[in-house]
This record gives sequence, structure tokens and C-alpha cells, in this order.
Amino acid sequence: MSRPKPISGYPEFLPAGRIVEQQVLDVLRETFELHGFGSIETRAVEPMDVLARKGEITKEIFTVRRLHADDEAPVPAGDQLGLHFDLTVPFARYVLEHGGHLSFPFRRYQMQKVWRGERPQEGRYREFLQADIDIVGAENLAAHHDVEIPLVALEAFERLHTELGLPPVVMHVNNRKLLQGFYEGLGIDDTAGALQRVDKFDKIGGPAVADLLTGELGLSDEVAAKCVAIAGICTGDTSFVDQVRALGVENPLLDEGLGELAELVRVAGAAVPGRLVADLKIARGLDYYTGTVYETELVGHEKMGSVASGGRYDSLASDGKVTYPGVGFSFGVTRILAPLLNRGELTATRSVPTCVLVAVDSEDTRAAAIATAGKLRARGIPTEVAPKADRFGKQIKYADRRGIPFVWFGGQTGDGADGPQSAQVKDIRSGEQVDADADSWQPPAADLHPRVGTA
Amino acid sequence: MSRPKPISGYPEFLPAGRIVEQQVLDVLRETFELHGFGSIETRAVEPMDVLARKGEITKEIFTVRRLHADDEAPVPAGDQLGLHFDLTVPFARYVLEHGGHLSFPFRRYQMQKVWRGERPQEGRYREFLQADIDIVGAENLAAHHDVEIPLVALEAFERLHTELGLPPVVMHVNNRKLLQGFYEGLGIDDTAGALQRVDKFDKIGGPAVADLLTGELGLSDEVAAKCVAIAGICTGDTSFVDQVRALGVENPLLDEGLGELAELVRVAGAAVPGRLVADLKIARGLDYYTGTVYETELVGHEKMGSVASGGRYDSLASDGKVTYPGVGFSFGVTRILAPLLNRGELTATRSVPTCVLVAVDSEDTRAAAIATAGKLRARGIPTEVAPKADRFGKQIKYADRRGIPFVWFGGQTGDGADGPQSAQVKDIRSGEQVDADADSWQPPAADLHPRVGTA
Repeated sequence: MSRPKPISGYPEFLPAGRIVEQQVLDVLRETFELHGFGSIETRAVEPMDVLARKGEITKEIFTVRRLHADDEAPVPAGDQLGLHFDLTVPFARYVLEHGGHLSFPFRRYQMQKVWRGERPQEGRYREFLQADIDIVGAENLAAHHDVEIPLVALEAFERLHTELGLPPVVMHVNNRKLLQGFYEGLGIDDTAGALQRVDKFDKIGGPAVADLLTGELGLSDEVAAKCVAIAGICTGDTSFVDQVRALGVENPLLDEGLGELAELVRVAGAAVPGRLVADLKIARGLDYYTGTVYETELVGHEKMGSVASGGRYDSLASDGKVTYPGVGFSFGVTRILAPLLNRGELTATRSVPTCVLVAVDSEDTRAAAIATAGKLRARGIPTEVAPKADRFGKQIKYADRRGIPFVWFGGQTGDGADGPQSAQVKDIRSGEQVDADADSWQPPAADLHPRVGTA
Repeated sequence: MSRPKPISGYPEFLPAGRIVEQQVLDVLRETFELHGFGSIETRAVEPMDVLARKGEITKEIFTVRRLHADDEAPVPAGDQLGLHFDLTVPFARYVLEHGGHLSFPFRRYQMQKVWRGERPQEGRYREFLQADIDIVGAENLAAHHDVEIPLVALEAFERLHTELGLPPVVMHVNNRKLLQGFYEGLGIDDTAGALQRVDKFDKIGGPAVADLLTGELGLSDEVAAKCVAIAGICTGDTSFVDQVRALGVENPLLDEGLGELAELVRVAGAAVPGRLVADLKIARGLDYYTGTVYETELVGHEKMGSVASGGRYDSLASDGKVTYPGVGFSFGVTRILAPLLNRGELTATRSVPTCVLVAVDSEDTRAAAIATAGKLRARGIPTEVAPKADRFGKQIKYADRRGIPFVWFGGQTGDGADGPQSAQVKDIRSGEQVDADADSWQPPAADLHPRVGTA
């Protein structure tokens, strides 16, 4: 087999990149679990009719079939399977299938690969990792969860920033009730149509949106101007409420949306100052979300677009008897990490978990070296034994190539038992070398595991 | 959507089962990393020509294609993709593709789902999780790694047994050189044919194997009897060497195999007594393995067959210039856990990570409850705030249903600030209730996270 080539759209990380990804996932998991979210995993495949329900994405679905099935009769439509393209659709199916065994409100997180047949480009992959949190109720779900979810997300992002050196984020939030109520208050009948046009605000700008609203929807210049005006409102505090009020539109749904959004902005402003803004042009997935919506940008990497998003939906799923409303948030883990890793903006201090390499000066002392390594591991210190008896220069080179900070040597006798002579451990970065006892020596805490940070 | 039905062969765990799985994976990861194995993940898909190289499994491959590609021209054979059916084939491809960026010997672990279009039954799934460790060298790899790999595996199994209550294991090991050399020493030309017949020893028994060897391969009764005799040797110490010698066959490859296997049995007997036996009928995957081979059974669940296995291969991969020999081991995580979870033999003490539920007696005090929860979380205590203001009986019921051991209440004033009155925390299992300060109260260590154990 000659050297294989990568397949476009299927990113793979080298070991150091994978260490970064693992530590990111560890932070997410720890944050989620501290907030009482439990993990689930769903199978990678769903029946096509489950997947195809979310219409606009159908063309991106990967179908799956047994190789030898190709020769057989076509699979009945109901039995055809496809790879899931997000974690929401399988979660909704999981809730319906296992609902009798779950307690509601049900708080879950889920970190799995998903697959989409998109045209690959930076930030768009055919296989990528998502990390989702959702809270789902049976029949009802209190509005305070709309505030809770983005706070959990921001706490996770804040830890990723301060502990691992990822860029800080700004979360842009809006509320569908607010826009819907505003449009209704203006007397617009086709509110969905208006939302679709306003959704293009970032791409084509306010004047062009106004043209669409008047030209395509037949709105008056005055009404279109107000739609553009509200879309332009973006504040880091609750002053957006007065700015909306100043547009002079009255509607009960608008009031409700303003109230919910103001509460979120107020609480988030106190908890994580500067990380959340009310941005009234955010519209995302409007056939789906019914209340608060969230988008998140990495500061300094706004061109990557929203890397994490979510919102409130009145019906995640329904089995005809019970309807399950929910609020959720999805971290685009690969979408965040692949560009940062590819550009070398994030890195790990070493490419292996190993903290100590125990040198072996002759194969006769391998057993003693293995015993030393066992003692270090028993105290939680990741340790390798040199694969080959060799002079110390070679062993230090072995460690150096992998970023292993410490090389241990001596303390071994030829008969494989611990000898009386003292062992020594060398910090190969500083060259410092000290006597050490495998039952008590401890590396600096910062060296125990690879550290992740900016390059 | 009506209640969906499970798809046969695709097991999914309820939240408590997933907690068991997570803790199993945590033990595996920690053990692997303590031994210097670094994580990698490979994409789920490989080109069909890469997958199909391992001939006998081809019929079980799932192919993947874009839904709308069905209407288009057939995909060229070289571009057709399938889901990986193990982690060895993708790892071999990864080593070839990224070899220039890796340091050899390369120690990696990999925990991912794999897919096989098998007929589903207990212990056989269409989607299942594997956890693999391998050490791969460039051009050569020392024999001591054949001893290292099963010791790492046994250390992991021992922790799963003592810490999480999984059944203990017995690992059955053999060495292909030993059998190959033995057969050559007997003058058998078709050694592969002999191995194939002997591989049926467990299923059909010694006399039937002897019949196959004489009838199908034309071996003499005496030679066939020796093949059956060596296959019947199974010892927990190195006495197998004398038993083989007593059969009177002389061959240098046999000597080499006996030496390697004796060393493994000797070292493992000292490190993890009673967990490893030399079992000379083990033959597995003989087109592939070239030295030591491992199989593992759960004690008391031998009917499940081998749940974890591996071995030495002289060529994991080759790019024409460099050949990569390796030795590896694969844990069938789903294969081990799904039956134990289904039968209720393993369980978690609760279905959520939450240790403390902070009660809310009126919506006016929710902010104070959130502040209390934040203080507990800041000290690593997984905490939820009650979703609904309610009387304490209901809140205790909420906790009880999920197995949350502690309910926190009081210490809140109606204005959302921490009040001066004392808070209390109740252990809902014992009913014991004590005054508590959110800045210092600590649950018993055993209650901080869900514990896994036998039911």
C-alpha cells in the first residue's frame, strides 16, 4: 500500500492535536456534569424517515447499506438507514423511544461525530464532532432554563479560554417571540417571510433587506424601515428594550420576548460580563426554534461564523400523547478546533501522555526498570520504559522527540532487583538532575500531564 | 411520531448504563495513559479498497454514500467509502498516512465505534465500541512488547474488576511460532491447514480434530495424535514447556515460540497471579498474527466467548519502503458491557451525575438557590437547582427518582441575596439533616460521583 491521501472533509488530528481535543472534551464534560447533565450516546444510524423529517438537510444525508445488499432487492424505504447529521434528531428519537425510563425534565449531554455530505471547506466538514446539551420537559419546561443553558455554555467557554487558551467568545442572543410579536404589531401577515429576509441582514446589509421587504413582500417603506431598524439593535445590556420601545410597536408577544431576553441579558451580564449581547438580527432555524436563540463567535475569528448555537423549541418531539419542549445548545467542537490546530494557534506541550521515561542501560536491567515504572504509575505518574537498551544520549533523544520532560536512570542492578545505588531523574529541558526515589519523587504538577495552550 | 422501536444490533444504553460505560472507559483511558499510550481517533469511513483487503470480512462492510448520489453515475470503485469494521485497518492506514509526523515505536490507544453487517445476537452487534492499544515499530519491534501489551490489558481488567465490579478475567495465550514450529517439526507441509483444523478443537473436540487431520490432510494417526495432544495443553505456569518437550518434537521455531511464551507466562504470573494461562489450542486470525496471540474470557461468562483479544503481527502495514510490525490488543467494550447491563449485573448508584439538588421554595428565591449551587460547583460538587418551586416533599421525590443523595434547602431570603438564616442539607437515604455552609460543606467522597458496582 502506498502512502494514503487524506479524504477531503474528514479531518484527523495528529496525537498532539488529539490531546488538545481530549482536554477540550474533558472541560466540557466536567462543566456539564457539574450542572447535572448526564451523558447519553445514540447509535450513528437512524431510519431515513426520521432523518428526512427535517427537510432542508435531506440532500446532505449519507445512506448506509451492507455491501452485499447491493445485489439484492431494494431495501424498503422504512428500513433504509442513514448516518445522523446532528445530535438533536437522534435525541428526539431517544426521548420518544426510552421516555418511559427517563425522568423529566431530562438533562443530557451528548458528544458524538455527525456526518453531512456538504462540499468540504474550512469550517465545513463531512464528519465532525458535536457536543450538545439539552433540557427537555414532558408537556412543559420553565422559561428559566432558557437562561440556564447559555450560562452553562458560557461557563464552559470561559474555562476553555482561561484554562486551555482558546479564544474568548461573544454569544449573540435573540428571541423569536420578540421578532414575531414586533412583526405582528406592525401588521405584517407573512412574518415567516419577513424573518427570512431579515436573516440576510449580515450578508447583504440593511438597505438591501429593506428592498426585499418592500419588493418581495409588498411592505410599506415605513414598515420595512422598522424591520431593518430593530435588526440593527445590538446591546451588551438591557438598553435594547428601550431602543425597541422607541420604535413604537405594541404587541403582547413582543412584550413577552422582550421580558425573556432582558432577563437573560441581565443575568448573563452579572455572571459572565461582556460575553453576551442582545443582537436582534439573529434569526436562525426559524421553522424550529420558538423562543430564545443563541449563536456564538470566537473573538478574533468572526470569519468562522457561529461555532456554537442553540435555542428554545416548543416541541422537540411528540408521540401524539405527550409533547416534549426543550432548550439546547450545540458546540461545534471540530469546527472550533480544526482551524485553530491547523494554523498552529493551539498546541500541547507534548505529543504523548508520558511524563517520565525510565532509561534501560542493558536488557538485563529491564525488569528493574519496569518495577521502577510500576512504582511511578502507582502514584499516577504516566511512565514509559525505554523500548531499547541504549546509551543515555539516545534515551534522552527518544524523550525529547516526544516532549517527555523527565528521564529516570540508575537504581537498578543487573539481577533485576532494585539495587542499593541511588536513582536519578533528569529534567531534559533544564538539564537539572537530582537523586530520586521511585516511591516518593513527584514531578511538578504542571508537568504531570500535557498542557494545552496557545502556540 | 409514534414510539420508535429499537433497531436490532444497535444497542443503546439508558443514562445509568452510560455512566457504567463512561467509568469503564475512564479506567481504560487512565491505565493506557499511565503506560504512555496516546489517543488517536480516525475517521469512521475508509475507502473500500482499504477495507476489503482483509478478505473474509468484506461481506459485513457497510457502504456509505450521499442520498442524492443514488441518482448519479456510479461512484468509481476507488472513491467508494465504507464504515470501518475494526480499529486495526484504519490505524494501519493512519500510520502510513501520518508516519512522517509520528515517532516510533508509536504507542496509541483508540476508543471508537465500529460497524459490521452481522446477524445481530447477544454479543454480536452491528454497531459496537472497541478500545484498542497497539505498539508499532518502524522496521522492527522488540519482543518484550509482546509481554508488555497483555500486562497493560490485565492491569486494566484488574482495575475494572476491583474498582467497578466487573467479573475477573482469564487471558489465554499462545504463540504462533510454537504451533508452526511444532507442525514443521512433525513434517507437516500444510501447516496453515493443520492450524485451521486444530482451531475447531473447542467446538468439535480432540477426536473429531484428529479425524479431520487424517481424513482431510492425510496425516498419519501418530502425527494427528500429537497435534491433538499439544492443543490440549493448558497451564497457568511454565510447565507447558516440559509437556510440549515430552511430545518429542524438535524445531528451532518451536524453541523460539516456547521461549517467548514461557517468558510471558512467567512475568504475568508474578505481576497478576492466576489471570493468564498458556493455552496451546488458541489459534485466532492466523493469516494475520505471527507471534504471541491473546484471548480473554470473563470468569463466569465463558459462554460469551473471547471479549478481548490481540496479538503480534510482523506487518501491520507497509508502504513499500518501510514495514511496520506491531503488537496490539482490543477490548470489546460493548461486547463486555451490553450483556452485563441488560441482565442488570452491573449498575450505577444513580442515573445522573448530580450529587446535590438545591431546593427552591418560591421562584423569588431561585437566584439565591442558583448562587448556592454555584458555590458547591466551584468546589467540584455536581449540583442542580430544582426546576420548579415546590414544597419539600416534591423536591425530595425529584431527587429520589434520580438517585440524587442530597437535598439542600434554606439559607435564602426572598430578595435573592444570601440570607442570614442557616441552610440545611438532607441525606435523603438516611433522612439525616444537618446545618451546612455552601462554602465549606463536603459530601462523603463516595457520594460525590455515581458509583458503579454489581447490582
